[in-house]
Amino acid sequence: MMIEEILTEDKIENGYKEMGYAKLDSDRKERTGFAEVVFCSGKTVEQLKDIYKHIYEEEGEVLGTRASKEQYLALKESFPEIVYDELSRILKIEKCDKEHLGNVVVCSAGTADMPVAEEAAQTAEFFGVKVIRIYDVGVSGIHRLLAKTNELKAANCVIAVAGMEGALPSVIGGLVKNPVIAVPTSVGYGASFQGLSALLTMINSCANGIAVVNIDNGYGAGYLATQMNRLALGI
Amino acid sequence: MMIEEILTEDKIENGYKEMGYAKLDSDRKERTGFAEVVFCSGKTVEQLKDIYKHIYEEEGEVLGTRASKEQYLALKESFPEIVYDELSRILKIEKCDKEHLGNVVVCSAGTADMPVAEEAAQTAEFFGVKVIRIYDVGVSGIHRLLAKTNELKAANCVIAVAGMEGALPSVIGGLVKNPVIAVPTSVGYGASFQGLSALLTMINSCANGIAVVNIDNGYGAGYLATQMNRLALGI
Amino acid sequence: MMIEEILTEDKIENGYKEMGYAKLDSDRKERTGFAEVVFCSGKTVEQLKDIYKHIYEEEGEVLGTRASKEQYLALKESFPEIVYDELSRILKIEKCDKEHLGNVVVCSAGTADMPVAEEAAQTAEFFGVKVIRIYDVGVSGIHRLLAKTNELKAANCVIAVAGMEGALPSVIGGLVKNPVIAVPTSVGYGASFQGLSALLTMINSCANGIAVVNIDNGYGAGYLATQMNRLALGI
Amino acid sequence: MMIEEILTEDKIENGYKEMGYAKLDSDRKERTGFAEVVFCSGKTVEQLKDIYKHIYEEEGEVLGTRASKEQYLALKESFPEIVYDELSRILKIEKCDKEHLGNVVVCSAGTADMPVAEEAAQTAEFFGVKVIRIYDVGVSGIHRLLAKTNELKAANCVIAVAGMEGALPSVIGGLVKNPVIAVPTSVGYGASFQGLSALLTMINSCANGIAVVNIDNGYGAGYLATQMNRLALGI
Amino acid sequence: MMIEEILTEDKIENGYKEMGYAKLDSDRKERTGFAEVVFCSGKTVEQLKDIYKHIYEEEGEVLGTRASKEQYLALKESFPEIVYDELSRILKIEKCDKEHLGNVVVCSAGTADMPVAEEAAQTAEFFGVKVIRIYDVGVSGIHRLLAKTNELKAANCVIAVAGMEGALPSVIGGLVKNPVIAVPTSVGYGASFQGLSALLTMINSCANGIAVVNIDNGYGAGYLATQMNRLALGI
Amino acid sequence: MMIEEILTEDKIENGYKEMGYAKLDSDRKERTGFAEVVFCSGKTVEQLKDIYKHIYEEEGEVLGTRASKEQYLALKESFPEIVYDELSRILKIEKCDKEHLGNVVVCSAGTADMPVAEEAAQTAEFFGVKVIRIYDVGVSGIHRLLAKTNELKAANCVIAVAGMEGALPSVIGGLVKNPVIAVPTSVGYGASFQGLSALLTMINSCANGIAVVNIDNGYGAGYLATQMNRLALGI
Amino acid sequence: MMIEEILTEDKIENGYKEMGYAKLDSDRKERTGFAEVVFCSGKTVEQLKDIYKHIYEEEGEVLGTRASKEQYLALKESFPEIVYDELSRILKIEKCDKEHLGNVVVCSAGTADMPVAEEAAQTAEFFGVKVIRIYDVGVSGIHRLLAKTNELKAANCVIAVAGMEGALPSVIGGLVKNPVIAVPTSVGYGASFQGLSALLTMINSCANGIAVVNIDNGYGAGYLATQMNRLALGI
Amino acid sequence: MMIEEILTEDKIENGYKEMGYAKLDSDRKERTGFAEVVFCSGKTVEQLKDIYKHIYEEEGEVLGTRASKEQYLALKESFPEIVYDELSRILKIEKCDKEHLGNVVVCSAGTADMPVAEEAAQTAEFFGVKVIRIYDVGVSGIHRLLAKTNELKAANCVIAVAGMEGALPSVIGGLVKNPVIAVPTSVGYGASFQGLSALLTMINSCANGIAVVNIDNGYGAGYLATQMNRLALGI
Repeated sequence: MMIEEILTEDKIENGYKEMGYAKLDSDRKERTGFAEVVFCSGKTVEQLKDIYKHIYEEEGEVLGTRASKEQYLALKESFPEIVYDELSRILKIEKCDKEHLGNVVVCSAGTADMPVAEEAAQTAEFFGVKVIRIYDVGVSGIHRLLAKTNELKAANCVIAVAGMEGALPSVIGGLVKNPVIAVPTSVGYGASFQGLSALLTMINSCANGIAVVNIDNGYGAGYLATQMNRLALGI
Repeated sequence: MMIEEILTEDKIENGYKEMGYAKLDSDRKERTGFAEVVFCSGKTVEQLKDIYKHIYEEEGEVLGTRASKEQYLALKESFPEIVYDELSRILKIEKCDKEHLGNVVVCSAGTADMPVAEEAAQTAEFFGVKVIRIYDVGVSGIHRLLAKTNELKAANCVIAVAGMEGALPSVIGGLVKNPVIAVPTSVGYGASFQGLSALLTMINSCANGIAVVNIDNGYGAGYLATQMNRLALGI
Repeated sequence: MMIEEILTEDKIENGYKEMGYAKLDSDRKERTGFAEVVFCSGKTVEQLKDIYKHIYEEEGEVLGTRASKEQYLALKESFPEIVYDELSRILKIEKCDKEHLGNVVVCSAGTADMPVAEEAAQTAEFFGVKVIRIYDVGVSGIHRLLAKTNELKAANCVIAVAGMEGALPSVIGGLVKNPVIAVPTSVGYGASFQGLSALLTMINSCANGIAVVNIDNGYGAGYLATQMNRLALGI
Repeated sequence: MMIEEILTEDKIENGYKEMGYAKLDSDRKERTGFAEVVFCSGKTVEQLKDIYKHIYEEEGEVLGTRASKEQYLALKESFPEIVYDELSRILKIEKCDKEHLGNVVVCSAGTADMPVAEEAAQTAEFFGVKVIRIYDVGVSGIHRLLAKTNELKAANCVIAVAGMEGALPSVIGGLVKNPVIAVPTSVGYGASFQGLSALLTMINSCANGIAVVNIDNGYGAGYLATQMNRLALGI
Repeated sequence: MMIEEILTEDKIENGYKEMGYAKLDSDRKERTGFAEVVFCSGKTVEQLKDIYKHIYEEEGEVLGTRASKEQYLALKESFPEIVYDELSRILKIEKCDKEHLGNVVVCSAGTADMPVAEEAAQTAEFFGVKVIRIYDVGVSGIHRLLAKTNELKAANCVIAVAGMEGALPSVIGGLVKNPVIAVPTSVGYGASFQGLSALLTMINSCANGIAVVNIDNGYGAGYLATQMNRLALGI
Repeated sequence: MMIEEILTEDKIENGYKEMGYAKLDSDRKERTGFAEVVFCSGKTVEQLKDIYKHIYEEEGEVLGTRASKEQYLALKESFPEIVYDELSRILKIEKCDKEHLGNVVVCSAGTADMPVAEEAAQTAEFFGVKVIRIYDVGVSGIHRLLAKTNELKAANCVIAVAGMEGALPSVIGGLVKNPVIAVPTSVGYGASFQGLSALLTMINSCANGIAVVNIDNGYGAGYLATQMNRLALGI
Repeated sequence: MMIEEILTEDKIENGYKEMGYAKLDSDRKERTGFAEVVFCSGKTVEQLKDIYKHIYEEEGEVLGTRASKEQYLALKESFPEIVYDELSRILKIEKCDKEHLGNVVVCSAGTADMPVAEEAAQTAEFFGVKVIRIYDVGVSGIHRLLAKTNELKAANCVIAVAGMEGALPSVIGGLVKNPVIAVPTSVGYGASFQGLSALLTMINSCANGIAVVNIDNGYGAGYLATQMNRLALGI
Repeated sequence: MMIEEILTEDKIENGYKEMGYAKLDSDRKERTGFAEVVFCSGKTVEQLKDIYKHIYEEEGEVLGTRASKEQYLALKESFPEIVYDELSRILKIEKCDKEHLGNVVVCSAGTADMPVAEEAAQTAEFFGVKVIRIYDVGVSGIHRLLAKTNELKAANCVIAVAGMEGALPSVIGGLVKNPVIAVPTSVGYGASFQGLSALLTMINSCANGIAVVNIDNGYGAGYLATQMNRLALGI
């Protein structure tokens, strides 16, 4: 059978929708409480239109990550209500009047870590979380972080985003009683090895309660924070 | 000043107790909700006796990890009620009648991962968590894991312990709505590189809601699970 | 002697054809049962024309991999019957009426793994194998894979293509009795290290019967699958 | 529940036997055609006795790998017919009169690679394969390998075991039409990095039809060879 | 010529003393201001006796690092005034009445880092530096470090010794105006990779004025601190 | 709250100025003796204008590193006195009549290391240091370096910049009594791994008194040299 | 002093010519028997013109490596007799009537390795060596290499250039009595890691007499081969 | 066939002697000019006796490397004339009255590198080379090396042995006209990574004419030096 034939198939099976090049996991919300999110990078415009259309029909909203401006402009024709944020590269259609509950703090070490921090923050907001941002509080000017101790202590969980040496989560972990989600970023140069150094720092943290996700994985951090926030809310 | 002089100092300062070779963080419970835990590996018997004595006086109980049988036998003289578990290497003095609340599931992929899984489970239990153990459910016999789907879905969080290729958390992550704490172990040989391969697998997981800790860090997973369990309990 | 002189030589020796910059292995089909396949990447258009011409005359068909669209357009002038697939980057002249025998299943974990999966599938088809495609069955939605258990069990071998954490082959390996060819892909970001993480996952698989090839090496997987399929067919 | 209680449970569930510290995969033979094999390293004598007893009752024979002499001596008391091979570290109880069919060749590059080569050969023999051994045919004395070309060409598959630079599979791959299973070993020093160099060599082989397994994984190679041999035999 | 003959040679050449197996750099003090220091690890007792004797005759004192207790006991016979410190593994003969000038602070993150911190501190003291020790001030209990801000700010330079995630120098670097010498230690487990993670953290520090030395290189840090202290003293 | 709102906030807090995307560390000069320096790479023109304006108002001068020509041209409109050096990529507004004191030597191994060497030299000069440049004195023509021995010995510290094998600091370290700041560069190819090889060389130096900074971190070397120079000057 | 001033200096010192940005090693031919060779990559056209002019005046010929076509076109105006080879990227002005002596064989594994092989061959030819080229003799078609055994055995040394798994030097090393210079190339994909795999293969070769140089370092191989050839010629 | 049967076979085939566990390469001297050398590490005493006996009968002498004292004592019974050197771990039976010709210099950077340097020197001497030893001339005291410039310049080739940062070959390479064989050693600690750092330093050397062998491969260096020395002697 030719690949073209496969790609035009469109059938429903148990718990997923067969699209040939993809099997949309329609059962996912049932299992995990979250509808499928679209990783836009590397998908063609045609694939994206198809997938956004299908999820929009099912859920009434769609969250996409790692989208390019080109993808945004192409999808805008079909979905005029679509919104794109250049910093976080999030491309979404979102229901109005969404309520934001709980309390998650997103910290970043430096200005250059903001794209990842925003991906985390906006992901959590899309999933209904109330988010507080505290940016540019890297450990080399520790008074900036300590000035925010009360906000940190009040959070259900803290997302700490840092590149270079990635020391921020260790310091925060020693200040709070709830979990810290550590996000290494690829910010840095030389021996930062595109975030590997920051990842190792976070994995080896001497502080307790540090949950590490992949380099630049703001989305994953926002998702995990939403889960923790929901635990606290009893959802 | 000679190092010997330093080591015999014993003074109280703001928020910590100066022991010369250590500064016991007496303020920690206030900040984080957890008293200090002792990482026994590499400490001398004299240091351990000192530290256990101090924490025991403050807290009425002590949790130690990575203890050797020699350390246990030496401390047993001073603390007859001390308990040692050879599998998890946990060395503790624990209050009786401790209540265990909430619901955390600890899974392990293979029999060889049990020491790390038990360190995680017993840490959480020490902190008052109700723990369910599901062992030897590696992905190469997936029916064994799927038979436990209901237990997994009911947990406030799942700790997934795996060495070799470390695929277990990815499969569990797709089945549950709460966070999965992924613990790579150094179990394996050849290209497992003492757990590095499993660590990379977990950091790169295609599933959402995966929080990774260091290789063999059962204690860290138990701590993080306790935090999540407390969020769910509203403690 | 100048390099230009070498490059214009064209002589036949024992078991190979001397082309100066290459020694076409005319004895290969005799030894291995497969004619030489062209790795197009990095070759000039002139070299490709020469090589395609020579193999075409010998074999009546040519298989090339990793070709660019530019190479295709340039060769189309000389070989109007040449066919190019942008997804798999395969550039081939193929005999009509080729019979496809046996049964090889090609699975992929995600949509982004399709280029590699197609390189594998189309390579095997070129060599006369009957191929079934099962795409987007990554382990984070395990029900999609399990729904295809019968197809997997019926195959002479299964090619499992996955990037990111690369867990797919381990799960399939536990379901089937025939070999699984594991192909890591460079799909992912951060700590995926261009496929190294997936490669390590597959090499360390806790399942049995996993044969690993290089990152993104769809061609190698298709070749190996053809060999296994031929064993089953008694060719 | 205490770990001791778990370890004394002994109940049968769907497709596996719950032993607390392990879930014996009783369904495995049904699914994969192979009964469970015991990875002895790291298991206690008590666990091994239990597991050997259970498998022996089910299958009438048991294959164990990576066993120590101590484990052998301890199990010999309970299973007088048990056999231990110090070179390959295989510890097995095997049915008499086993027929060996098909044709698998096991090659090794150097004398120091023999333990891994024997693990591969004896695993395949346990599973009923007829094995031919060709040892010490490393590429630095290529005439020794070429003298065996006919044996290599006649095999359903060839297992090539090599440490140091690991070049053997590439040369064999160019001589035969059936698959070559490449096993890197940890033999070497300096920049061999415990087999990593040989693994990379084999994964990057310029020859086709090379299936790579983990460093020192003779068992995995023997298993994979058995699968290929069965394909050829139509079993 | 036989190696034995070489080893018994004993001649003086320009700027060094030929001992066959070593060329003692008698010109070194002239060039660098420091007499040669003995790296004891791996040297035989005979070699050590020879070298200590020679330096003692030249300088009236000797500093050795990485010595074992066995080496100490063996040398004690020849040099009754020799002193050994088990923690730092320093083995020295030191002039009495040495004056200690200037101000260097040595910090360590945890108790397990003390051997390296002491090697640094005692090296600097041997070279005439006044040293202040501040131990167990890891970043997960940041108040312990901040309580010492005045001592840190007053130092000519600060040596910061840390294993695990190695974040200590970054925080100190943001508090002081003079250089921070960062010493990664091999303390940790799992992904600490014997100090590599801490080394990378320190090399990538977002703070300014961080000078990094090799893993566990307390001696090197003490030497560098002495140089900086001498600059401040105008020596 | 939307990110746009945050970015327009402009308030002063304790010891830092909140700019939403950044917290300018106004307390830094107080603590460390150095005003904040701008890492231009990755910042937008708007952010840069804002930051340069703020620092210029506070300090009367600004130092920026890793600037592009585009950034220079854009800022030139607002700050006509701004100066850009293409080699070092330094973008600065500098007070006139600055006095240069002390003595720091900057050496480079090859011509290709000059951009990093100049970043170091110009950073130190901006901070008021008198700098001597000695370029292209790599160890493969050791007479070129030795001809400068007197200049090297006279320096308060030497910055040694080298890519490829990075041996230069080891040789200089053996010639001088003051510290050597070693800067690995990403100059090289093949197994230089973008400076990792040179970094490892310098970290493992057999010479004493070597302080290593990150790959290509000329700025960090210049800062550290300034600190040492100030120690010598008693500033 | 400003960098511009330095760059315009032009003075002669002992054994080298000071050009500010470079110190041309005029003593090199005296010491090593080879005039300085220009590594063109990363140098400006102005620098190149200067350097070529100086060497040309001294030696009457110039050898440059890693040159771009742009550099060639720019230098052609000043040096009409300059010759550029796009394959090897060698840019040279060469004396006529150069005699080529001795016997060096350059082998390459695949067509894609030719640029490096040619850099090696043409470097040796520039230095007066008689070179024989044997290309595309990778080990997966071993008969092509064995057909050239006599040429290989007759060489004073053999340069073996290979990417991917890099096995070629090991096989040649077992056939000849003189040294084999092994050059890994960055040819390959996936786990070839830009030549690291081939480098490790060659460093770990089980054959004797293998001298390894850096990845893609054809020039270094040609230089080393020239040295060996001169030893054989008694030059 | 059982492995025991294979191991007792003893037959002669074309160009090698079949010993079951080994194929002694009797054709090797013909091809390469060197008889087979025994890598003793990992071989049993029985295997060693067999192999030494066979080679001794053929050649009248035997060279073995990496031998233990236990192996020496065991073989001494059968071969009373056998000689063992604990430093280099060479175990040999050597013809008397061997003439040593030519000129090879062996340098080492530090005392701890002597075992590798001696393996190189004694290997070359066994093969008839006249060797000059220059030890402890590491680059941090460069005057010790420069004092030997004449000896270095006179050698047919220089073997440079160094651990830690491995800079020695680069400096020597700039002083001599003949090849330098660079041997990294595993001497060092921390980020030396068992010789990997020194290996990378040598592979990236900025000097020309550097031939690198594996970490601690003194034997390989001695072999290569013998080949070069023979070229110079016209043997």
